[in-house]
Amino acid sequence: MKWEDNVRKVVPYVAGEQPRKAKMIKLNTNECPYPPAPGVAELVAKLDCGDLRLYPDSHTTPLVNILSEYYGVKPEQIFVGVGSDDVISMAFMTFFNGDRPILFPDVTYSFYEVWAELYRIPYKTCALDEDWHLRPEDYRQPNGGIIFPNPNAPTGVLESLETVEKIIQANRDVVVIVDEAYIDFGGVSALPLLEKYDNLLVVQTFSKSRAMAGLRIGFCIGSEKMIRYLNDVKFSFNSYTMNYPSQVLGVEAVRDDAYFKGITGRIVNTRERVKGRLRELGFTFPDSRANFIFARHKTVPGEQIFQALRENNIYVRHWNKPRISEYLRITIGTDEEMDTLLSFLENYLAAS
Amino acid sequence: MKWEDNVRKVVPYVAGEQPRKAKMIKLNTNECPYPPAPGVAELVAKLDCGDLRLYPDSHTTPLVNILSEYYGVKPEQIFVGVGSDDVISMAFMTFFNGDRPILFPDVTYSFYEVWAELYRIPYKTCALDEDWHLRPEDYRQPNGGIIFPNPNAPTGVLESLETVEKIIQANRDVVVIVDEAYIDFGGVSALPLLEKYDNLLVVQTFSKSRAMAGLRIGFCIGSEKMIRYLNDVKFSFNSYTMNYPSQVLGVEAVRDDAYFKGITGRIVNTRERVKGRLRELGFTFPDSRANFIFARHKTVPGEQIFQALRENNIYVRHWNKPRISEYLRITIGTDEEMDTLLSFLENYLAAS
Repeated sequence: MKWEDNVRKVVPYVAGEQPRKAKMIKLNTNECPYPPAPGVAELVAKLDCGDLRLYPDSHTTPLVNILSEYYGVKPEQIFVGVGSDDVISMAFMTFFNGDRPILFPDVTYSFYEVWAELYRIPYKTCALDEDWHLRPEDYRQPNGGIIFPNPNAPTGVLESLETVEKIIQANRDVVVIVDEAYIDFGGVSALPLLEKYDNLLVVQTFSKSRAMAGLRIGFCIGSEKMIRYLNDVKFSFNSYTMNYPSQVLGVEAVRDDAYFKGITGRIVNTRERVKGRLRELGFTFPDSRANFIFARHKTVPGEQIFQALRENNIYVRHWNKPRISEYLRITIGTDEEMDTLLSFLENYLAAS
Repeated sequence: MKWEDNVRKVVPYVAGEQPRKAKMIKLNTNECPYPPAPGVAELVAKLDCGDLRLYPDSHTTPLVNILSEYYGVKPEQIFVGVGSDDVISMAFMTFFNGDRPILFPDVTYSFYEVWAELYRIPYKTCALDEDWHLRPEDYRQPNGGIIFPNPNAPTGVLESLETVEKIIQANRDVVVIVDEAYIDFGGVSALPLLEKYDNLLVVQTFSKSRAMAGLRIGFCIGSEKMIRYLNDVKFSFNSYTMNYPSQVLGVEAVRDDAYFKGITGRIVNTRERVKGRLRELGFTFPDSRANFIFARHKTVPGEQIFQALRENNIYVRHWNKPRISEYLRITIGTDEEMDTLLSFLENYLAAS
């Protein structure tokens, strides 16, 4: 026997590229083009580095408290993790322990499949309809749990609160997770449904609308019972996950609501303007309510446009996957960045 | 069926208490009593908060590079995680996938058992001898992997490099993990053995000797092959775990070697002085090479001393577990803190 015989064999995952070039335009990982709230810099200046010698608060109390005030729920209804990836992964581990397959859309966030494989959870994907919408009737089959993003990624398509509620109503016997990573760009959150359904878990993140991808902060809100189960699992194997700077600085992102509304509003305005220009250039796309647009060109292949942009230091996202290989996912940057993109596309498509 | 039927049932874990009182003396979680290197504050002052909007470098390149220089190994031999808990948990998942039980001591870091249960890895504990030392012959039985801390926790007992090598030599067909969380307080690291053994993984942390428990930084060093396997598993399910502040500030803890040697040297000096005084007060203990002392009193029960200290705002650690229920694990604080502890014990024991 060799030690390598005991090694867990995984399918090597190729993450989206994260180049750091001086003059690049980075529209490939849905980051916020604006900096975090100005108060964050003030808090950094006041940071007592002596405190770094101590273990951080494993309950992330300050963050939980301000989120509780902001969303009008009890602190006992909130669970905080190291990015929403950590939160969702923990939720898979906690809530999806049945024998029946969990359900999620065929075109969606690629990590759902990864976590299901990791925790050996059976799963089944349900095809989106031709307009990239969920078909609520697909979620009436026997299952061990449900998860979908709203708006969906990478399509940007928002489902109505009625559709979301219909799916929860039909699935009171399993946990339904609504992944609202992109909800703050004009979507309607499922949070009010928490009053009616104790099997609903709503996940959000500080990485997009709160401009803090670098701090790794995600959270979810659910019934007190669900959050207790999540905490039991988390504390059963790792007490100290979120570090001290994230706990301190994350609070400011919630406190400064005017700034938050300001930057998300700007991103929405830019997005709507870009939609018009993309249409003029011959692109089609589902109507996005996220901080990105999922677009294909009428005649020029997606892969070709992707490469041309890349050679000109404009990075967008492209997948060689069924149903979506002609599409580009373009993050909404600043107005200036989007104008550079649009000018390039105009010239490039005229020459194609 | 109810949604709760699918919930993962865990044994609720009670973490060591983390009280934050103004005048308390906190000797219960092996934190460093001194602040991080002074350069950390300078780096914090220079932190560009605008960078927080971007995802952090998923390869933690600056940290990996400085650790590579410091320890004289290739960057490809280093894996960095969110505290050594994250690193070890990932190593369990990656390397302990056989059917044979993994082996670790009966008295040791309590999370080994937890991760084994979590990942459904069979395990077997080997009893320490009467002097709290490993018995190398125990580690000659068929197994699926081995892990032990050196120095061991909570005993503080250091095994010689000869003992460590003997165990590795007898187990070339499995991965042997040496958890060196407390190696910087006078221990001899197994790192030089990496040149001979490609199945050895050495884990260390910034939480104790580098005074950065609040940043959550751990790392391990092994053969390039092992680190590649670890990265494959990590990247297969979570690319962005260590946040931006930890990546930036952690570098300084390695760069300022004089400060690092200064504070670890001070802690060692304090420890040796405290050993003498504890002996005079009627305590016995194995000879610690860590930043704590694992001591019992000749006549007064451990639980009783623990409670008396606690009522006087001095926090140490006590477990109601077989073999160790009479012992207290006392973290080495500043000289002043230790003098307060010793004075209290002197008066308390005189009155008992």
